[in-house]
Amino acid sequence: MTRRVSIPLKIGNITVGGNAPVVVQSMTKTDTRDTCATIKQIKQMEECGCEIVRVAVPDREAAAAITTIKQNISVPLIADIHFDYRLALLALEAGVEGLRLNPGNIANPEQIARVVAIAKERVVPIRIGVNAGSLPAKFEPDSSLCKRMVDMALKQVAFLESLDFNLIKISLKSFDVPTTVQAYTAIAQETSYPLHIGITEAGTAWSGTIRSATGIGILLHQGIGDTIRVSLTAHPCQEIRAAYEILKTLKLREYGPTLVSCPTCGRTQVDILPLAEAVDKYLEKINRPLKVAIMGCVVNGPGEARDADIGIACGKGNGIIFKKGEATKKIEEKDFLKTLIAEIDSFQE
Amino acid sequence: MTRRVSIPLKIGNITVGGNAPVVVQSMTKTDTRDTCATIKQIKQMEECGCEIVRVAVPDREAAAAITTIKQNISVPLIADIHFDYRLALLALEAGVEGLRLNPGNIANPEQIARVVAIAKERVVPIRIGVNAGSLPAKFEPDSSLCKRMVDMALKQVAFLESLDFNLIKISLKSFDVPTTVQAYTAIAQETSYPLHIGITEAGTAWSGTIRSATGIGILLHQGIGDTIRVSLTAHPCQEIRAAYEILKTLKLREYGPTLVSCPTCGRTQVDILPLAEAVDKYLEKINRPLKVAIMGCVVNGPGEARDADIGIACGKGNGIIFKKGEATKKIEEKDFLKTLIAEIDSFQE
Repeated sequence: MTRRVSIPLKIGNITVGGNAPVVVQSMTKTDTRDTCATIKQIKQMEECGCEIVRVAVPDREAAAAITTIKQNISVPLIADIHFDYRLALLALEAGVEGLRLNPGNIANPEQIARVVAIAKERVVPIRIGVNAGSLPAKFEPDSSLCKRMVDMALKQVAFLESLDFNLIKISLKSFDVPTTVQAYTAIAQETSYPLHIGITEAGTAWSGTIRSATGIGILLHQGIGDTIRVSLTAHPCQEIRAAYEILKTLKLREYGPTLVSCPTCGRTQVDILPLAEAVDKYLEKINRPLKVAIMGCVVNGPGEARDADIGIACGKGNGIIFKKGEATKKIEEKDFLKTLIAEIDSFQE
Repeated sequence: MTRRVSIPLKIGNITVGGNAPVVVQSMTKTDTRDTCATIKQIKQMEECGCEIVRVAVPDREAAAAITTIKQNISVPLIADIHFDYRLALLALEAGVEGLRLNPGNIANPEQIARVVAIAKERVVPIRIGVNAGSLPAKFEPDSSLCKRMVDMALKQVAFLESLDFNLIKISLKSFDVPTTVQAYTAIAQETSYPLHIGITEAGTAWSGTIRSATGIGILLHQGIGDTIRVSLTAHPCQEIRAAYEILKTLKLREYGPTLVSCPTCGRTQVDILPLAEAVDKYLEKINRPLKVAIMGCVVNGPGEARDADIGIACGKGNGIIFKKGEATKKIEEKDFLKTLIAEIDSFQE
């Protein structure tokens, strides 16, 4: 898992690319013009670890709301712009730290040049955000979707470079995971700009999370991806939590606790499911890295419990508590949850 | 995504490896000795698409239960054996179509030879199921976990081959995804036996699904994996559904409907979340492949809706219904769910 070397850039105080950790971002789902609701949602997103927030700017009123929003948040803000370049100018004026332009629906070179001039002046990076669903039908109609996405992005990159602008990030999103992977793999070899990765319109919390973990996981494992966004038809905090879980799985970020728990089988003699669910729920409150293992039997139980910070390997009606690799005590089934919570609360590195 | 070429074998009537589709399997979580509960769970598993079922056989009573279980199910059955080779002999006698032996806790060559002799006679494949949590501490203590897992499996493969037995499947599971990926990648180059892949003790439904999708997705994308098992501390049907969702994401299997739905943003002017959730829920009843897109705005909406079998691209208070790529009608927001359900019900290929 060797990471692709990309040119780092700054979105406000957050570095994307280079040696920086893979950055987690998400997007608000409120009406941007409703500053109260939008600020409230951004604060929730900050709290669950969102490092860059993007807001849609579909009209002048939304662009005007950015000033108030920015005064009330601390996370860097990116304006998401489609169709109308003037909204990008207004967003820059309002102080956004990043822009996302969709080359599929903002194509006029003079208009793009006006946005780029101001972005350059303000040192604001632009993401060239290609999306399979908004590629113009007339753009390379006979090529594969992958080639069309890559070519559209490279065409826009060349244009921005011709304006002596290189604060560029690129994304090439599609619902189709093999196509998305192929497109990012291709562009990763063509440029050194940082890549924003994600699977677009991935679906609801359950299927969208699986689709995102599969696609984003494959890319990250190939060393591709400097910032990720999990797109779910769900609250942004669910996107952020899923993003960190993917990054934790690949050991690219540490973020909060990790629960190892066995699937249980005909060998298990205690009721592991509700115990694991209850501990999982309790761990949501914990912000520090902590590995907890809940294991149902003697096959892998002692091994996994020993490998965790806190573990339990269960037998018939009882279990052995492990701490930092050592078996510390034997407890009865009725005390499982209580004891594990006490161990979690009192755990010292 | 070129698939690794493996030697196919048969678990009952199911082919694993070769050109066969990647097979979905899972394991019962009932007490195997409770034949009623176990048969009931296996029937649920069959119904949600499980192609091979594994049961734990921790004692003689569990082994004895297999005869009754087998009389009442149609899916091939694998016995999961640890510690005691005699349970493998009893399971073979009871007619299981496959065995899983853990080389970490069944190591006596004479005992293994006795099992192999009967398995060969009955043409029953054996999975060499290595698990990080049950590797003996004294086995290559100074090597990396990856090397220890691979070496343990290869040692057992060599022993089975020395007995002229080659109905072999291999698994190398660990909670650690990079290690698991590394181990499967290594063994994929060393042997041509089919590989059973999965991430072990992956956790509860949410985090375990993300961990499994990431790890299994990376391997499948490398062409590795002939059968998969998603291990979750949850009902086996959740494991099976997650397995199919991963396979669908990578276009390796078709299985039921697929929902494309946008994450929504400040641009969306209708309430997409409950609509997507309700359609998702409705689609659970549908068994055939069907792609439905629920899109919140004009950016990617028409593109994605056109690409689906049935789609809706929403505007302000209304939406355009697409069928097989054609816009068919404009409907009001109050009719969204009703109309989509009617379109789903009446859809003909």
